[in-house]
Amino acid sequence: MTAPFDFAPLLAPGTPPPAIKWNGFPKYNFIGGHNDAKHVPVDALIAAATAVLRREGASLATYGLNSGPLGYRPLREFLAGKLEGHAGIDCSPDEILITSGSMQGLELVNSLLLAKGDTVLIEQETYAGALTKLAKLGINTIGIPLDEEGLRLDLLKQKLEELKNKGIKPKYLYTIPTVQNPTGAIMGEARRAELLKIAAAYGVMIFEDECYSDLIWDGKRPRSLYAMAGGEGVIHIGSFSKSIAPALRVGYIVAKWEVLARILALKQDAGSGALEQMVLAEFCKQHFAEHVPRLSRTLAAKLRTLREALAEQFGTAAEFGDPAGGIYLWIKLPDNVDTVKLAQAALAAGVSLNPGPEWSTNKDHARCRLRLCFANPEPETIKQGVAVLAEVCRREFGVPLRSANVDRA
Amino acid sequence: MTAPFDFAPLLAPGTPPPAIKWNGFPKYNFIGGHNDAKHVPVDALIAAATAVLRREGASLATYGLNSGPLGYRPLREFLAGKLEGHAGIDCSPDEILITSGSMQGLELVNSLLLAKGDTVLIEQETYAGALTKLAKLGINTIGIPLDEEGLRLDLLKQKLEELKNKGIKPKYLYTIPTVQNPTGAIMGEARRAELLKIAAAYGVMIFEDECYSDLIWDGKRPRSLYAMAGGEGVIHIGSFSKSIAPALRVGYIVAKWEVLARILALKQDAGSGALEQMVLAEFCKQHFAEHVPRLSRTLAAKLRTLREALAEQFGTAAEFGDPAGGIYLWIKLPDNVDTVKLAQAALAAGVSLNPGPEWSTNKDHARCRLRLCFANPEPETIKQGVAVLAEVCRREFGVPLRSANVDRA
Repeated sequence: MTAPFDFAPLLAPGTPPPAIKWNGFPKYNFIGGHNDAKHVPVDALIAAATAVLRREGASLATYGLNSGPLGYRPLREFLAGKLEGHAGIDCSPDEILITSGSMQGLELVNSLLLAKGDTVLIEQETYAGALTKLAKLGINTIGIPLDEEGLRLDLLKQKLEELKNKGIKPKYLYTIPTVQNPTGAIMGEARRAELLKIAAAYGVMIFEDECYSDLIWDGKRPRSLYAMAGGEGVIHIGSFSKSIAPALRVGYIVAKWEVLARILALKQDAGSGALEQMVLAEFCKQHFAEHVPRLSRTLAAKLRTLREALAEQFGTAAEFGDPAGGIYLWIKLPDNVDTVKLAQAALAAGVSLNPGPEWSTNKDHARCRLRLCFANPEPETIKQGVAVLAEVCRREFGVPLRSANVDRA
Repeated sequence: MTAPFDFAPLLAPGTPPPAIKWNGFPKYNFIGGHNDAKHVPVDALIAAATAVLRREGASLATYGLNSGPLGYRPLREFLAGKLEGHAGIDCSPDEILITSGSMQGLELVNSLLLAKGDTVLIEQETYAGALTKLAKLGINTIGIPLDEEGLRLDLLKQKLEELKNKGIKPKYLYTIPTVQNPTGAIMGEARRAELLKIAAAYGVMIFEDECYSDLIWDGKRPRSLYAMAGGEGVIHIGSFSKSIAPALRVGYIVAKWEVLARILALKQDAGSGALEQMVLAEFCKQHFAEHVPRLSRTLAAKLRTLREALAEQFGTAAEFGDPAGGIYLWIKLPDNVDTVKLAQAALAAGVSLNPGPEWSTNKDHARCRLRLCFANPEPETIKQGVAVLAEVCRREFGVPLRSANVDRA
């Protein structure tokens, strides 16, 4: 046995603190992008795995199967059809790159475009993973406030003008136009058209993340920005995590070939997992069209349960909208509530939640806000979890004064 | 339709040139880590997928299944047992992190330890992917020459002394001790013990890559450096790519928890693909032990075919050893042959090969060397491919003078 070795002096500067040991999921799991367990299409996935392995399993012996580095071709073919039908995108399978989750898409686009000190525009409330990655790269990240339809274009224009006067050209505008994370906003086509006009006028590239866009209650998804721009000046990413299962790490990037060829050159991972791509392609061709509305109905019902539970437990102390899709509810609590502290106290009581400041460039604005994911817990668990949360919040911050229509003060 | 958008001014500095379009595999495919297609255990993988999805498919609804961010626990449990039995490693499943290929393991360890300008030691002939990643990070990469048993310890010690005198402390020594890539060398336990002594004396961490170590003809794998050091001062990585199928992107890192916790904090990908982990775990528990020797027998036979074909076609112009395992043969051609140019000319004739300079820190030494992967092509294809290669080489460089025992000069 060798003597103990001290790694600490070898660590690169800026290494994050060690991870803590995982101790299982909390009883009331409202975080992350977890989804409904009953809607994982187990039987159909087994049938898909059996069929595709029987037919093409031997191709696992080669990196990239027989499809090359863009990813399994039948999956890209399915996507090209789906994106045309759902999002109005006219692209070939060779303008789609399969990634290990849309998160890898984010990283690749960042690698392509960003260097330390660069500026990007982003929705003020946005995906925490995007903010973390930008912070790690030393990017100047400017948040643009949102309303119930997404990006405030007046404020976007104002900021672009301001930057132009300072001689700063933002590398991109990152937006989640369809079922925005965390607010759930869906940007209509008129605002999309106006957004594209502004972006073109200022020469700003749009980085469009549509990883929630399959989950809309009425199934009516607006045309994507990529589609409306004919692919010019837009990079589009998406995912199967929300519509099929998050533990399958399969996302994609859509871009014009001249851009995609540069992104592909940066994807030095010997390909994304082939089995997941094969099984998804086989499954989706047959079942995607009926699977998604079925999942959406359950999600819409869970959202109703969550909204009712919040109204019951928090009364007017909790303010929230009525998202038309997705898996999240963005909630405002009274100004004195610090949701970072609330998250710690709630976790001790078995309730996990995402505190607002991690999902916003405006930490003050987001201080009393939080995000709850309603997709994973069963309805009864949602009700119980919200009751526990209200109790913790009352104990820590004195609100809600009354919960479950009983005066607890 | 928006006007054409020019991305070029937005690119980050140092962006690599665009990828070229993939046009299918060459007829004679001797590159990369492709494996034997007939040995992909298709039926057993179907049975594994069916069983594991039936039992646990619903857990795909949560990131990390029910296993947390280290990866699917039954796979880590299988690995803990396998590593103990095969490599003498005593570790718990919580000292194993499942990665998306061993390549992600390389990247994570590099992220943990390296900053621009750092120095690392590496085997003079080594994995091209490791060299590329180090170059991209701006690392000073020092190659240590090899002999038929791997690292030359006298030269390693000399280099460490030299660096010590300059006040330079290398961040790690990267080694592939078992079936070295590309030379196929296997370091015996006596040399491993001596290597560990030297590393400890100079306080140098060892980064051990054992991704080929399952594929040894006689099945006798030496204890790993990690095992012999009791895990102190060693990070170990491995993979299922070579023993099961390369398109399954599943590798792993073994390290003491205090190191692994820091690596885990850097793994911001929401987990590696769950389906591949589940299917592999289910398959390996039942079939790994009999699958690997069966695959190895075929690989050993293919190596014999390749060596015979080279002897027949190149005569004494091709020099090579007789690796006791793996999927590669490292070959020296006459000094006037430039294998980078040879690779281009051969590809035009349908033969892909890896030119030596990409696999070495010593470009001059490697100029006339090349790596052939013999695992993917069938024996007859190997013979034909070598004949085509000899013909191209003779045309371009005048050697071999005679091929197939026929004087072509």
